[in-house]
Amino acid sequence: MSMPFTDRHIGIDQDARRLMLDALGFESLEAIMDAAVPAAIRQQTPLRTLPAPATEAEALAELRTLADHNTVRRSLIGQGYYGTITPAVVQRNVLENPSWYTAYTPYQPEISQGRLEALLNFQTMVSELAGLHTANASMLDEATAVVEGMLLARRASKSPSNTFLVDADVFAQTHAVLAGRAEALGIDLVVLPLADTAPDALPECFGAILQYPGASGRLWNPSGVIDAVHAHGGLAVVAADLLALTLVTSPGELGADIAVGTTQRFGVPMGFGGPHAGYLAVRSGLERQMPGRLVGVSKDSDGRPAYRLTLQTREQHIRRDKATSNICTAQVLLAVMAAMYGVYHGPDGLRRIAQRVAQQALLLREMLLEAGEELVHDDFFDTISVRVPGRAAQVAEAASERGILVWQQGADEVRLSVDETTTVAELHDAVAAFGHEQHGTHGWFEHGTGRIPAALQRTSEFMTHPVFHTHRSETSMMRYLKRLADRDYALDRGMIPLGSCTMKLNAATEMAAVTWPEFSALHPFAPLEDVQGSLVMISHLETWLAELTGYDAVSLQPNAGSQGELAGLLAIRGYHRSRGDEHRTVCLIPSSAHGTNAASAVLAGMRVVVIATTETGDVDLADLRAKIVEHGESLAALMITYPSTHGVYEHDVMEVTQAVHDAGGQVYIDGANLNALLGYARYGDIGGDVSHLNLHKTFCIPHGGGGPGVGPVAAKAHLAEFLPGHPLAQMDQHPPFDHVTGMVGAVEHRGAPVSAAPYGSASILPISWAYARMMGADGLRDATANAVLAANYVALRLREHYPVLYAGENGLVAHECVLDLRPLREATGVTVDDVAKRLIDYGFHAPTMSFPVAGTLMVEPTESEDLAELERFIRAMIAIRLEADAVADGRWPEGDNPLVNAPHTAESVIAGEWEHAYSRELAVYPADGDRTAKYWPPVRRVDQAYGDRNLVCACPPIEAFA
Amino acid sequence: MSMPFTDRHIGIDQDARRLMLDALGFESLEAIMDAAVPAAIRQQTPLRTLPAPATEAEALAELRTLADHNTVRRSLIGQGYYGTITPAVVQRNVLENPSWYTAYTPYQPEISQGRLEALLNFQTMVSELAGLHTANASMLDEATAVVEGMLLARRASKSPSNTFLVDADVFAQTHAVLAGRAEALGIDLVVLPLADTAPDALPECFGAILQYPGASGRLWNPSGVIDAVHAHGGLAVVAADLLALTLVTSPGELGADIAVGTTQRFGVPMGFGGPHAGYLAVRSGLERQMPGRLVGVSKDSDGRPAYRLTLQTREQHIRRDKATSNICTAQVLLAVMAAMYGVYHGPDGLRRIAQRVAQQALLLREMLLEAGEELVHDDFFDTISVRVPGRAAQVAEAASERGILVWQQGADEVRLSVDETTTVAELHDAVAAFGHEQHGTHGWFEHGTGRIPAALQRTSEFMTHPVFHTHRSETSMMRYLKRLADRDYALDRGMIPLGSCTMKLNAATEMAAVTWPEFSALHPFAPLEDVQGSLVMISHLETWLAELTGYDAVSLQPNAGSQGELAGLLAIRGYHRSRGDEHRTVCLIPSSAHGTNAASAVLAGMRVVVIATTETGDVDLADLRAKIVEHGESLAALMITYPSTHGVYEHDVMEVTQAVHDAGGQVYIDGANLNALLGYARYGDIGGDVSHLNLHKTFCIPHGGGGPGVGPVAAKAHLAEFLPGHPLAQMDQHPPFDHVTGMVGAVEHRGAPVSAAPYGSASILPISWAYARMMGADGLRDATANAVLAANYVALRLREHYPVLYAGENGLVAHECVLDLRPLREATGVTVDDVAKRLIDYGFHAPTMSFPVAGTLMVEPTESEDLAELERFIRAMIAIRLEADAVADGRWPEGDNPLVNAPHTAESVIAGEWEHAYSRELAVYPADGDRTAKYWPPVRRVDQAYGDRNLVCACPPIEAFA
Repeated sequence: MSMPFTDRHIGIDQDARRLMLDALGFESLEAIMDAAVPAAIRQQTPLRTLPAPATEAEALAELRTLADHNTVRRSLIGQGYYGTITPAVVQRNVLENPSWYTAYTPYQPEISQGRLEALLNFQTMVSELAGLHTANASMLDEATAVVEGMLLARRASKSPSNTFLVDADVFAQTHAVLAGRAEALGIDLVVLPLADTAPDALPECFGAILQYPGASGRLWNPSGVIDAVHAHGGLAVVAADLLALTLVTSPGELGADIAVGTTQRFGVPMGFGGPHAGYLAVRSGLERQMPGRLVGVSKDSDGRPAYRLTLQTREQHIRRDKATSNICTAQVLLAVMAAMYGVYHGPDGLRRIAQRVAQQALLLREMLLEAGEELVHDDFFDTISVRVPGRAAQVAEAASERGILVWQQGADEVRLSVDETTTVAELHDAVAAFGHEQHGTHGWFEHGTGRIPAALQRTSEFMTHPVFHTHRSETSMMRYLKRLADRDYALDRGMIPLGSCTMKLNAATEMAAVTWPEFSALHPFAPLEDVQGSLVMISHLETWLAELTGYDAVSLQPNAGSQGELAGLLAIRGYHRSRGDEHRTVCLIPSSAHGTNAASAVLAGMRVVVIATTETGDVDLADLRAKIVEHGESLAALMITYPSTHGVYEHDVMEVTQAVHDAGGQVYIDGANLNALLGYARYGDIGGDVSHLNLHKTFCIPHGGGGPGVGPVAAKAHLAEFLPGHPLAQMDQHPPFDHVTGMVGAVEHRGAPVSAAPYGSASILPISWAYARMMGADGLRDATANAVLAANYVALRLREHYPVLYAGENGLVAHECVLDLRPLREATGVTVDDVAKRLIDYGFHAPTMSFPVAGTLMVEPTESEDLAELERFIRAMIAIRLEADAVADGRWPEGDNPLVNAPHTAESVIAGEWEHAYSRELAVYPADGDRTAKYWPPVRRVDQAYGDRNLVCACPPIEAFA
Repeated sequence: MSMPFTDRHIGIDQDARRLMLDALGFESLEAIMDAAVPAAIRQQTPLRTLPAPATEAEALAELRTLADHNTVRRSLIGQGYYGTITPAVVQRNVLENPSWYTAYTPYQPEISQGRLEALLNFQTMVSELAGLHTANASMLDEATAVVEGMLLARRASKSPSNTFLVDADVFAQTHAVLAGRAEALGIDLVVLPLADTAPDALPECFGAILQYPGASGRLWNPSGVIDAVHAHGGLAVVAADLLALTLVTSPGELGADIAVGTTQRFGVPMGFGGPHAGYLAVRSGLERQMPGRLVGVSKDSDGRPAYRLTLQTREQHIRRDKATSNICTAQVLLAVMAAMYGVYHGPDGLRRIAQRVAQQALLLREMLLEAGEELVHDDFFDTISVRVPGRAAQVAEAASERGILVWQQGADEVRLSVDETTTVAELHDAVAAFGHEQHGTHGWFEHGTGRIPAALQRTSEFMTHPVFHTHRSETSMMRYLKRLADRDYALDRGMIPLGSCTMKLNAATEMAAVTWPEFSALHPFAPLEDVQGSLVMISHLETWLAELTGYDAVSLQPNAGSQGELAGLLAIRGYHRSRGDEHRTVCLIPSSAHGTNAASAVLAGMRVVVIATTETGDVDLADLRAKIVEHGESLAALMITYPSTHGVYEHDVMEVTQAVHDAGGQVYIDGANLNALLGYARYGDIGGDVSHLNLHKTFCIPHGGGGPGVGPVAAKAHLAEFLPGHPLAQMDQHPPFDHVTGMVGAVEHRGAPVSAAPYGSASILPISWAYARMMGADGLRDATANAVLAANYVALRLREHYPVLYAGENGLVAHECVLDLRPLREATGVTVDDVAKRLIDYGFHAPTMSFPVAGTLMVEPTESEDLAELERFIRAMIAIRLEADAVADGRWPEGDNPLVNAPHTAESVIAGEWEHAYSRELAVYPADGDRTAKYWPPVRRVDQAYGDRNLVCACPPIEAFA
């Protein structure tokens, strides 16, 4: 019998556990958990739904069975999701390579240069295709990118109007997401057929969105509309198809201020809806108002170019209740894939792919016309709408029988979208579905431009940077990907003890099914009968997550934690309004909360009121009660994190939640720290009404270098109907969990969707499914206990060198601990930054810096690290403390010591004279251990301020590196 | 339309090609090929069988269809092949990771420390399990390992006997391979039921082989037989199941001299027969006589432990016609996987797996007995033989209907083998196949030892080294694999311009199907109806390869080039003997031949006569004619390589082959250099009767760090029936190719098998299939031309710095060029070794050293490198030449310069004082280019002699690295 997966996932083995428990003075794991987790909140109900743990082989076999219940037909559905060929070299060396998928968000730029370069390629590619000045490092998907475009238009527009125009020809899912978000913010959406509306007939507005080409496939010149919007003082947002942009005039050239869309068809499988990288690009002048992550070029302390995240002061975690967006992540892994698709094909290759699509669409048109069918539009890129009065369902059915899926637009129209994978045989089959057998062969030329009107044909260059012209052979591409990966520090090198980020193992077995075609090749709007396996998996996950968190219903719709949070707050809003409590709009948030909490509350149309926290980091109960009284009937919700963002199990949490309930408010519990609770206590049991979870933390979705995330929202029964649904969802009933019977019933999620696809990032759900399935309820509980053990062990060992801020009543922390470096700074001048960068020299990724308290490091080792790695980290931290002492003692000058000069590249200790008070050897080999396993950072400390002042967000010329 | 695969595979793009052709003074690729390839040998026949090239997506779709024509039933067949679970972390990070699979044989130990460590783990694991002193770095498979065991016994034995005893209970495939090999060498095999033969009744012999446990499953104590063999002066070879050895007394403890077997069930999928790593371990005293690769510990020039291939003077390429084995590779990638299975499970984990197997076999026994079935043996580990008079076929059929495969031993017996993947439900199904429905549940204990007799239960320890006790968590294992991979230089870092090794791209698409269960989970003896897809693929490959080489028939049976060579020579032998020409035993071999040629000839029972080569590297026609006359009727064959091992298209090749044919000899053409010929000329057309190909060169099977190889043998019609077949082959008719009609007929391969499985390394054939399918005939031809272009371009650019030895009449080389470094050495004292090691500092793998001529470097860039990489290499070689000049000029002392001190590790330039005449910077950054992409060798120059003198072939204690 092979080792159970639990023992593979949890790094601490039995001997290590004994040793660590002894050091902490506890008999057993249960004893330390008894001491750490307040008795009042401990879970009482036994878990019923999660089956006994499967082995890795069994889990794969079950996934195989689920996969076999999906049917992959060739999709001509389109509507924002297209067949695409992931280059095998990209799939193998990025999507299936832990060096890429286990990396964290590049907050430590010195050890993230590889993925930062990949993202800069992405930004360069997108901005040049869009014809706009700056693109960000990706959005969650197209629909949320449109929302962000609308919000950006609102804040950048000088128009007093509260109206946002929406072209009637936008994708249905875009409209649904936009409608929900606009409603919460009181924005008036006015839907108009913009292509057929005279520009001077447009109403006042602060902006407009149009799809280019339209959802119907129609290709038209929107410059008149754009001018009219500008004339009103509004901004024009164009949702543009990136592949079409290789052949058609770019939004920027047409006058658009903002372009948004998806990069899915650049080599990222449809995956039943996601994850994919959305994009957002803006004209010059708007870049400092953009939402999301933005990569920029700065320089390191040796003056060399170095990449970094730029303009971070725009971001929600800094702006909190002043935030204009709650977007706090990107879709990095998918953006990297799309960028590499561009790098591999280059502009010529992309054009050839687009030309083939356009020519096949033209061929399809010829065949349909010849067969006597009536087309709705005459100009298009890849999508043809056919008028089939009363026959739409019949045509779709006939196509399905031929193994092809088409889009039914009501009863009288079908749409067919050609993509990179379409074959002429499929087009024949598609035409046959209309009742016409095609026998003749239709000649077509690969290099024409289909039905793109001459006036809209693109003449401008794009992707001119050498990176898009260098890697045409697979050998070259493979090496480029390897070279970039080699610059980065990911979980495959060592621990990433980031507090609040839960960088645990992403097991290979969990990742396996993600690339199986039965999951990866499904169109999100494929018919119910084709997606049975995925729906069963989704139902499992909803049920398991509901029970594990003590809630009654779960929606997997949100494709990031921030969106789950927003969805949860919108559910609270919906609930209050359903009861006539429109006035309940105040959201109480402790001062220690994640910044995103406040941002999401604002975007859910709430008003943020901050609650004080006590010195120990707990919610200040007195202040809470006072604020409740003060806001009375306006109280909508309290948002807390449990365990708190200080990494502590607060004792009074039930009193806190009770107080809010007593005042008619709802309790939102942020699930960021679920890894300290799973199996021991449940949000639903301690007073939570709704929570979002971060599957990319607790449930092993890899961080992917900063996305994808998965952020399900879980709620009590009274909120269930307000959870996000989707107008195109195949499954309109979701399984709520009954805690008494252990049975599931059925409930409809009626809230507006918060992401484009019916089930969010469906293609990566097999990861979390497999994790839960292989751990079982006991394994998940074990993971929690070992995570708490590890954090307490690190706290114990480091306490005498760095004060540990915050602890529960027994002096125990939860799954992370906050090390206070402020005394060190006072004593030695050594900053948190110095320690973080010096850790790179020791071969570590720094813990979370200055959150929740400036001047601290928050360490979260997770359950997946073994004792040897924990000890290596502890030794490094102690050694750094001794180095700091040497600065304090004056042995090294404050301005020239290994801390302030960290990190040290190989070149910096090899080239030229060495004029420091410490040795070259100490600079780069400060720790014991295997010197041949040294991780060499590619750049020295990055100058953050320089990069913000001198904003460069596209690939710099090669000469810059000379 | 995506770029054709040809343009992804061939690194040289159109612009580069123009530039290179201009430099060489040719109009076009065709022009340079016209000049390089003698007109007389140019291919005239158009190719018919290979279809027009498929795109990557199309090739994958066709492979999918082939896969769908295989049926994977659960195998209880056993007989040397068992279900096993490849740990997902190993599959993803080794088998699917180019850092492992694109590496070359570790001849440059300084840049191969990762895989050398993995192989040392393998050797340690195997030798300790076998209870013997030394294990080598793997054999091709179990059957060939048995052959090598027999040959080792013969040379180590003092017995005058020519008899080798074979236990009647060895695997059928082992016996078949052994019989063929013994026959060729005139060894008498005597088959006896050793378990039932009184030790004192054993005949005289130089050795004996027995299976432990037997093919029947029987477990018995062979120590009496071993003693008796020893008493005759013979050596005892025990073919032992490695998983069983975790529970049963080891061969070494029983007195065996040699243990052999397979490590397949240690995590390597059955793959329809291979590749897997065989093993061979010997008692102390025999290690210097072992065949195959052996990894040992030595030290580097800084005195640190460093791994290397040891005792290479044993090897066939050095011993040539004195060789005792023709084994010239290992199964490194598979040995790494097996070693990592051991590292991940550790001895306790392996024991648990074995106990579960043993207990399930016991359960099966109980159920069968209860059902009234009669078992043949009472003591066993995993395999049960059931006596079913007249019912064997019926039981097998009934089992198959239940989705289970069993082994039919004749008409009256079936055998069932339990493995790591077996479930109790399957056992119930198996019993049901006998006609007994099982309803009761049978309790069983995971930790018992089944039916292993107490006296044979293992008590000795194994795998005590910390490496087998450290990496229990997946996180730790993943990092260990990454750390090892980081030490190695493989194709994913840069070019490996190894002459005669053809290190071209191994495309990700080509690799994709290898891990599909439809190919990887098939038992090699699965019934015909289950393996249709694989057989079709094999027929395709046989047909395509036959046509491409101008032969009539191909056997894919040989699982390495050396075995293909042997098979070809055995076919010649068989042919001569079938005509009564037993006296034809002389094999003419040019002095410039690969050493393996001679070794294989010896092992095919031939006598080697060396032919002189001219100064230009061609076969000396006069000497050839003289030798033909001299040996007259004894002439069996001539073995040549074309283009020659000097990398030149010999002009006289048709005269050479004609002379041999005129004298009644057969012509063997070594296919090592096929990459210079494919599409331009064919062995069959230039007088070849038989050739072996190296699919791991020309047809993209990755080198895997030194194996797997695939070495098909191709022959003219008159030799076809003598090609290797297999007694258990599902397909007894092979498709020979008819050049006139382009049609295939059917022929039986009647030769003895040269490897254990019916179709050799069947699981990796999708790689070559996909390559041929995506290139098409024109693409393969283009690859050849571009390879020749690249070699000539490198020769042109380097000619003024290093004389290029050998060229054809137009001054052109073929696909590789020999750089003469002897003048440099005379002038500067700088050796080939110095240049090779200095290339590491420049970020390159050295070209082939001192083959075919001592003091030279043979450079083969292949078609997959792009011009930028070729130029980088050229710049490095020129820069090194300038460094050597500086030594000659006296600017640097002969004993202390960057060449003689190369390679430089990071530590060597950072730690301590720097006392060299050149700078630290020059030591490690001698080239232009991106310093952050520097490859750091993990050790300095390895002391070869020290390692040979102080033989250590198991993991050294951790303290050695202190």
